Amino acid sequence: MEILVIGANGQIGKQVVQILKQEGKHEVKAMVRNENQIEEFESMGIKAVLADLEDSVEFLSEVFKGCDAIIFAAGSGGSTGPDKTLLVDLDGAVKTMEAAQEAEVERYIMVSALQANNRENWNPVLKPYYVAKHYADRILEQSELNYTIVRPGRLLNEAGTGKIKAGIELERSSIPREDVARTLVAAIDNHHTFRKSFDLTSGELDIKIALKKL
Amino acid sequence: MEILVIGANGQIGKQVVQILKQEGKHEVKAMVRNENQIEEFESMGIKAVLADLEDSVEFLSEVFKGCDAIIFAAGSGGSTGPDKTLLVDLDGAVKTMEAAQEAEVERYIMVSALQANNRENWNPVLKPYYVAKHYADRILEQSELNYTIVRPGRLLNEAGTGKIKAGIELERSSIPREDVARTLVAAIDNHHTFRKSFDLTSGELDIKIALKKL
Repeated sequence: MEILVIGANGQIGKQVVQILKQEGKHEVKAMVRNENQIEEFESMGIKAVLADLEDSVEFLSEVFKGCDAIIFAAGSGGSTGPDKTLLVDLDGAVKTMEAAQEAEVERYIMVSALQANNRENWNPVLKPYYVAKHYADRILEQSELNYTIVRPGRLLNEAGTGKIKAGIELERSSIPREDVARTLVAAIDNHHTFRKSFDLTSGELDIKIALKKL
Repeated sequence: MEILVIGANGQIGKQVVQILKQEGKHEVKAMVRNENQIEEFESMGIKAVLADLEDSVEFLSEVFKGCDAIIFAAGSGGSTGPDKTLLVDLDGAVKTMEAAQEAEVERYIMVSALQANNRENWNPVLKPYYVAKHYADRILEQSELNYTIVRPGRLLNEAGTGKIKAGIELERSSIPREDVARTLVAAIDNHHTFRKSFDLTSGELDIKIALKKL
């Protein structure tokens, strides 16, 4: 399969790309926003393509053609203004879903945020970000795409442990970005994750086993 | 019918309440955000209720019980920050839809913005506001509610003419708030507007006739 990683230069995206490259099971293509990043990826032997979430659905759909799966790991991150949150995390994300459908990419894996589905549990400090993620996820769940929505807890930079907890309503907790990246990659062709949404934190089960229990 | 007006103290909402009161065909209830406004409406003989779009769906649903139709005329207006846009125009609006369904209010009329349905035609200056309105409208169209989405052009404070243009894809133009308010009221029990979304500007047809052509 050819996997397109959106937000490939982000902290999770970079690790997804590297894991895919190391595993060598799938082809990987990095979607990035500037020429320097293209060169950076290509110098590592990774295909890269230039596109922006503020581009049109038509343009994005051209970029997506020929891919078999999309991993959406882009994000304004909640630290930029809420205008960017609206344009990137919500409308940008939904445009990629529409483009994926136009380009007949069936598989779509979204990085969301712990309990984005549950208004009552939104982190009050990041509320506008949660609103954007919530509605992007809702639109994805209503789409025809074969989606997986992964909702990680607080993201850490430390090394992964390969041990996770995946479930419908997990308590607020943290997880290394590396383990999120490994979970996203493991989900690609794992039927237990098809058309499912789940919270993700550090835990006690191997990724494969945790996903099997979904 | 009992009509609940959300954003009853806003520039369009106030006129909707007054027109409903003058016509006397329906009962009207004003939903407002502070005690002073309650007194103001009650002094004019209009029922009023205290609630906020940042309240929970459960609370809103209690407020809505017994109403037959909701007119959503609230709005951050695009002049507040985009964080409010996310919380009021998008999540606040969707909470009222969920609450309406819980309270078994079947009819729901939304004030949107010209071409909010068409990304290509969004006013670049107000883009985050358009994103919020777009997704609120999309969720409403996918709901079980008997909706009407009215998408007026640039809003003017001058007196209404009673003459409008209503259609699927109108050119950018303006309309007095009074004519928007009259159109919302005329839509309440007008079958031609059920489960429809349309642009609205000043035009040449009487409101009733323009709605009949939808």
